[in-house]
Amino acid sequence: MRATVIHAPGDIRVEDAPEPKILKPTDAIIRTVATCVCGSDLWPYRGLEPVGDPHPMGHEYVGIVEEVGSEVAGVKPGQFVVGSFATSDNTCANCQKGWQSSCLNREFMGTCQAEYVRIPNAHGTLVATDEHPSGDLVPSLLAVSDVMGTGWYAALAAEVRPGSTAVVVGDGAVGLCGVIAAKELGAEQIIAMSRHESRQKLALEFGATDIVSERGADGIARIKDLTGGIGADSVLECVGTPESMRQALHSARPGGNVGFVGVPHEVTLDGQELFFSQVGLRGGPAPVRRYLPDLIDRVLSGRINPGKVFDLTLPLEQVAEGYKAMDERRAIKALLKP
Amino acid sequence: MRATVIHAPGDIRVEDAPEPKILKPTDAIIRTVATCVCGSDLWPYRGLEPVGDPHPMGHEYVGIVEEVGSEVAGVKPGQFVVGSFATSDNTCANCQKGWQSSCLNREFMGTCQAEYVRIPNAHGTLVATDEHPSGDLVPSLLAVSDVMGTGWYAALAAEVRPGSTAVVVGDGAVGLCGVIAAKELGAEQIIAMSRHESRQKLALEFGATDIVSERGADGIARIKDLTGGIGADSVLECVGTPESMRQALHSARPGGNVGFVGVPHEVTLDGQELFFSQVGLRGGPAPVRRYLPDLIDRVLSGRINPGKVFDLTLPLEQVAEGYKAMDERRAIKALLKP
Repeated sequence: MRATVIHAPGDIRVEDAPEPKILKPTDAIIRTVATCVCGSDLWPYRGLEPVGDPHPMGHEYVGIVEEVGSEVAGVKPGQFVVGSFATSDNTCANCQKGWQSSCLNREFMGTCQAEYVRIPNAHGTLVATDEHPSGDLVPSLLAVSDVMGTGWYAALAAEVRPGSTAVVVGDGAVGLCGVIAAKELGAEQIIAMSRHESRQKLALEFGATDIVSERGADGIARIKDLTGGIGADSVLECVGTPESMRQALHSARPGGNVGFVGVPHEVTLDGQELFFSQVGLRGGPAPVRRYLPDLIDRVLSGRINPGKVFDLTLPLEQVAEGYKAMDERRAIKALLKP
Repeated sequence: MRATVIHAPGDIRVEDAPEPKILKPTDAIIRTVATCVCGSDLWPYRGLEPVGDPHPMGHEYVGIVEEVGSEVAGVKPGQFVVGSFATSDNTCANCQKGWQSSCLNREFMGTCQAEYVRIPNAHGTLVATDEHPSGDLVPSLLAVSDVMGTGWYAALAAEVRPGSTAVVVGDGAVGLCGVIAAKELGAEQIIAMSRHESRQKLALEFGATDIVSERGADGIARIKDLTGGIGADSVLECVGTPESMRQALHSARPGGNVGFVGVPHEVTLDGQELFFSQVGLRGGPAPVRRYLPDLIDRVLSGRINPGKVFDLTLPLEQVAEGYKAMDERRAIKALLKP
């Protein structure tokens, strides 16, 4: 089969690789219908995380089940399935409390930019749709497997509630999906921080009520202006840099909440500053599995259309161009067709 | 009048001082019925915070209103009142959302270990009881003005709910009041971390179901053992050191919450570690004013008795001995009678 391998920063290739096999009775093999490039894939691509030995890439996927291990119930060959970047048995103590992304048997996916993928913990990870969805729904279902699930978690971690004021820091695919989530959860005011016209436009289409293009002290001042002088109830931090975290923490009012879903890189927090801010903080890899049934329903019913974040569609063979376009911010997110 | 002044680490004196006067129309003057020494007073006493010029001390108080400014309604001379260490107008945008300890007109108290005290923002800060309480209720009402209100906030920030498992890190007066709060809010399992027999005993009396005397990695392992292997739903951090914060964060399960109320000293948090823990975190000076009516009711009805944390009662003249006894951990908390 054809599969994506990173060799070094900036060096992404599609190569021949052996098809994956069932290794454990809880595994499944899927044939990918669509996969994509994630903002977090850019960390090693940009050399901001070590690459190490050449290795496969990709953790977002929808596909058709090809084969299941002997202990996999609930999904069967031929079904269209949506999964998550973090696999989960859906039975351990953390899963039972709804924190499947901290499953005690969690394995992170990392080989999905390929024609076939082995899914560990398949029974607890994959959710099948009743029928094969039409092609126009595939991008949104793919988005649900990561960026929409992550934006949803950001909004819940930031405790967005009906009538809330919400700020979204970051105009990547996750941030834009965070706008959708804030809207769906009833936020009355949704301020998207963005300096890119096409992303501003999509944010407004997804439900943003205000756009703030300033950053740093000016950005914080604008947020205060827009939120009665005290800051927002909820802030969704969707980047993961020291600057974006600072922006987020200073955009929330005392008693407000920051949900942070950008994997933090070189972010440290001062305990006393956090203390006096009285801002609540929760981050982490999104427990996407908890949200899958609900989010798939919202997509299939046409209520949300997060697939719009894919503004570039490429054959898998051109994955390198997908990375490049996202790195150069020419594309929000690249969908790959195997 | 007689008032407490800190001159240098370890050097606490009672001196003659002018009686306070109304400075603003929103001020009140109270005659203290009881005041006390706080764990946070020990930071400068121990030289862990700079003392600077000699200055008054104390921020916990109950008393009788002597005089009110022209704009103070709601409380009047002769009433018994309970206040908070952070004054609040109770009308600003933060106060209206219940975050009075971040009142836009907040002034922190700092002159309360004295016979008379000026209370800024008196109308929004002080809550009067219907009648003068009997003397045996005074310690608990005094506790409500800080340590009980702070323990209550810790439990709410840690999202203690009926059926929760809760861990309390710190066996000072705030931690012990945190046990009361966790019990009142319905926690099913309350694990108090303490190595001191008298404090363990009081924790059990207040509702703790388990005592853990280990610290560090052993302490964390014990907590995991007691909480089904994953950690507690709620952790109340009531100390403020790097060690206690680490203990708290590692005692909470993914999706659990840490409420931190010990003012952090030299505490920094690693963003990525916090991210992958999926622990929610909220700290700050407790919005005691929000809780005062409820907590006063619970004291007057005999439902809670946080005044038991005062295991040493001294005349104001002997305040230095109160600091010394707390510093040496001979006393949990010293009540002072002016």
